[in-house]
Amino acid sequence: MASNKEEVKLFGMMLSPFVTRVEIGLKLKGVGYKYELEKMGNLSEALINYNPVYKKVPVLVHNEKPVSESLIILEYIDETWKQNPILPSDPYKKALAHFWSKFIDDKFLSAIKKAIFTIDEKERENGIEETEVALQFLENEIKDKFFGGEDIGFVDISAVLIAYWLPIVQEVVGLNLFTHEKFPKLYKWSQDFTNHPIVKETLPSRETLLPYFKARYETFLASK
Amino acid sequence: MASNKEEVKLFGMMLSPFVTRVEIGLKLKGVGYKYELEKMGNLSEALINYNPVYKKVPVLVHNEKPVSESLIILEYIDETWKQNPILPSDPYKKALAHFWSKFIDDKFLSAIKKAIFTIDEKERENGIEETEVALQFLENEIKDKFFGGEDIGFVDISAVLIAYWLPIVQEVVGLNLFTHEKFPKLYKWSQDFTNHPIVKETLPSRETLLPYFKARYETFLASK
Repeated sequence: MASNKEEVKLFGMMLSPFVTRVEIGLKLKGVGYKYELEKMGNLSEALINYNPVYKKVPVLVHNEKPVSESLIILEYIDETWKQNPILPSDPYKKALAHFWSKFIDDKFLSAIKKAIFTIDEKERENGIEETEVALQFLENEIKDKFFGGEDIGFVDISAVLIAYWLPIVQEVVGLNLFTHEKFPKLYKWSQDFTNHPIVKETLPSRETLLPYFKARYETFLASK
Repeated sequence: MASNKEEVKLFGMMLSPFVTRVEIGLKLKGVGYKYELEKMGNLSEALINYNPVYKKVPVLVHNEKPVSESLIILEYIDETWKQNPILPSDPYKKALAHFWSKFIDDKFLSAIKKAIFTIDEKERENGIEETEVALQFLENEIKDKFFGGEDIGFVDISAVLIAYWLPIVQEVVGLNLFTHEKFPKLYKWSQDFTNHPIVKETLPSRETLLPYFKARYETFLASK
């Protein structure tokens, strides 16, 4: 339970969709937090102590207790601060939210990585196909304005990397995976989601994300 | 919520630790269920309809509503039938339970697969090392009789594949990964856990599991 004297710290990194998930969660709840900026390749001792297993961001530290893994943090936030629920209370609807969020982190992420960062051409094509299959499953799951219904919820926040990161990444790589023509409902959703006031103010700017991915992709191409 | 007229079906397969997780959960709750036996390579149409994304067991179907993914099913069971809680109600303890269960499915499973089913000798050695690192993290996490305290809980059930499957698998492969000497607390835990009456009656017999893995491992060796 939230007490009056709270200390909430978020160990994060610029441009990470996983950190962005946690920030959206905290802002939806109206929970103030101190952002501890970590740098790739030069992590703080504090971060490594708080997350010795994975040694990575995001880590939420609430009154000195660390929680790692973005979806687990998001659920912790939802249960600790009850206002503006992120997960449904109905067990079946909650199970579905867990299922699709895990799907995004397992199936979608592995497919898109294969579609972008694979040298072997045949493997790369498999990755593209798997990405489109994953997006089609999500397209079929949108019944309302958001995955969560009329308000954004757990799956919407999990899918921020599809709504905002994917269009920028595919532009850099020169792919047309996620378009209005192929996935009209998912595309409409991505517009509505990224224009939600709290999401909008949390997303990193396109002007920083685009050159970052360009550089990363060029490094990959040079290593081929 | 559980009503009086319930239909609970579990689509499962013999010898699967993931199906066993769900069975332990249902039995702990005292929930009766119908077991629908699926066969590898010849899945029923019903199973594919219920789990079109992964097309695999376990799937729990509760009053015609399907839930997939063993850890998600286990949480659904815990929230639907409230008796004998599996997950802690405290948000922080629950987050830790989620963290370590995910750790078992991500880190431990990928490490042990690499340690067993890798042709490249160097990679195989990395897999062995990563498995031991993962087991050490879990060794350090046992504070009481079980991960869940004095009663078995979410992490214990998730770790059934370490308690029961790993000793059999390492015997087949000829590895000494998980021993009393290396991991005394985890080893003691595995004995206590597999001797818990409900766990004991649910586990497949050693006499069926051992030859199954022998055959599987020989097929792998022959394909090298």
